[in-house]
Amino acid sequence: MKIGLDIMGGDFAPEATVLGAILAYNEITDAKLVLIGDKERAIKILHDNNFSPDNFEFVHTTEVIGMAEHPAKAVIQKPESSISLGYQLLKEGQIDAFSSAGNTGAMLVGAMFSVKTIPGVSRPAITTIVPKLKGGLGILLDVGANADCKPENLLQFGLLGSVFAELIYNIKDPRVGLINIGEEEEKGNILCLAAYPLMKESKQFNFVGNVEGRDLFTDHADVFVCDGFTGNVILKLAESVYVISVKKGIKDEFYDKFNYEQYGGSPILGINAPVVVGHGISNPEAIKNMVLLSKNMIDTNLVSKIQQAFQ
Amino acid sequence: MKIGLDIMGGDFAPEATVLGAILAYNEITDAKLVLIGDKERAIKILHDNNFSPDNFEFVHTTEVIGMAEHPAKAVIQKPESSISLGYQLLKEGQIDAFSSAGNTGAMLVGAMFSVKTIPGVSRPAITTIVPKLKGGLGILLDVGANADCKPENLLQFGLLGSVFAELIYNIKDPRVGLINIGEEEEKGNILCLAAYPLMKESKQFNFVGNVEGRDLFTDHADVFVCDGFTGNVILKLAESVYVISVKKGIKDEFYDKFNYEQYGGSPILGINAPVVVGHGISNPEAIKNMVLLSKNMIDTNLVSKIQQAFQ
Repeated sequence: MKIGLDIMGGDFAPEATVLGAILAYNEITDAKLVLIGDKERAIKILHDNNFSPDNFEFVHTTEVIGMAEHPAKAVIQKPESSISLGYQLLKEGQIDAFSSAGNTGAMLVGAMFSVKTIPGVSRPAITTIVPKLKGGLGILLDVGANADCKPENLLQFGLLGSVFAELIYNIKDPRVGLINIGEEEEKGNILCLAAYPLMKESKQFNFVGNVEGRDLFTDHADVFVCDGFTGNVILKLAESVYVISVKKGIKDEFYDKFNYEQYGGSPILGINAPVVVGHGISNPEAIKNMVLLSKNMIDTNLVSKIQQAFQ
Repeated sequence: MKIGLDIMGGDFAPEATVLGAILAYNEITDAKLVLIGDKERAIKILHDNNFSPDNFEFVHTTEVIGMAEHPAKAVIQKPESSISLGYQLLKEGQIDAFSSAGNTGAMLVGAMFSVKTIPGVSRPAITTIVPKLKGGLGILLDVGANADCKPENLLQFGLLGSVFAELIYNIKDPRVGLINIGEEEEKGNILCLAAYPLMKESKQFNFVGNVEGRDLFTDHADVFVCDGFTGNVILKLAESVYVISVKKGIKDEFYDKFNYEQYGGSPILGINAPVVVGHGISNPEAIKNMVLLSKNMIDTNLVSKIQQAFQ
């Protein structure tokens, strides 16, 4: 098994990514890590940390897609970038999973150009974790892949999130909630009003109805479904609450669970390979967990389970 | 000056509302409070608290619109309800402002049936307060009046919020931000992409571009504009963060500012009279502040200033 890591992605690359690769190496026995990026710089960082480069495979490139670059243009114009190369390797089966803390849009576009969307899936979704006040985790999707959604997209996100929550977080028969502005079926915007009956009729997942903004950290549901605009606003708002609590020196188990470093990143669900996108500000711990999450997606056969669900 | 208060609205009415009216009375010298609802019950509560009923005027009714009732149906079918009567008095000029912690939807429908939308305003908006980390306040709208919005609605919310922030919170030339999922003009969903140029071209308020979920508590803007779906999700999420911090016993000046009790409620902006809707769980302190806010809206001539802005 080979796990690809973009060592050029993220605000603190390649230092944070290479150090993260060392941390991941120490926890992985049955897979080889493939570091994609500037080999010379990586080897220098490894030597500085008394770590043998022989523990990794390398695919060398110095071309990088910047965090602010236009995703589609950059992917097309930079075929030798670490993200483009990573997807090339993934498509050819030379690596079994790929992760990067780089440009999220480029990671999404790259996925759709290379490994492509799973047949039957209209639009892939980006997923994140929401901690529950009583303990445990919930899944929120989409958090930004699709700013505008159709009702069918939300229906599919329910299934994607359900399979993911069950396989990766061992949540049995995950409860899927639709993020809305009222509990009742007749509440909501046009999108939710149309999505509700589709989700209610679905026999592929356990739909529990509407959930509101206040229910996100409760035990009302395990999978929270919304369009990528709403999800992205929620994600960034929740992150800011965590940042504020850290700034304020508030020490609390619940707030600590907002720390993205623990979860390692956001999987892109609905594509034909395991892919995780990390936070731009990822530190080595976050990079390690991103790699471990991508490995978990291989180990659990997540992609083939999703392919089966959409057959 | 006469200020109307629905004493039947809210989860703890009429006790919380009548006690709130007493608190408001103690702070108001130049206006009479008109309590709309069950006079007998109100007088008993006042006697129990050694407070003379002569300090108030009463408009008696025992009919109430429940929190879960369908707004439009309830307003039509219950003309003698405290909300319907309040709006009747407001329309006839017998009271100068009206507030209620009752059914928000009924308050909105009642407003549009009675005092009506200001000419030029396509859709009224419900506004709430967001505290800033560095101190001071921001305004968020719409938080639920319009689940689906057109670009023109967001443009108008910018102006409504701007006039409100300037008059009520003394924010000079308020910076208006569009809640979006990226900072750049070309980011966003279809709605935001269409609203951005309209807002940018507006000479009626100080548009500062896109703001993200993480910017809500920062000093990026004073007025945060979004559709009512997004705003309602944000509002309820933020409220839940406050509830969690209280549960956790976290004492912090910033989190305390989320306490809705301090602000007294959400004004409906864009209608021809000062109207405030309170939180269902309003306690006497919140009711008092709701009444004071509605009085502030009279004192500052907010409605006529908005009417002028939309001429």
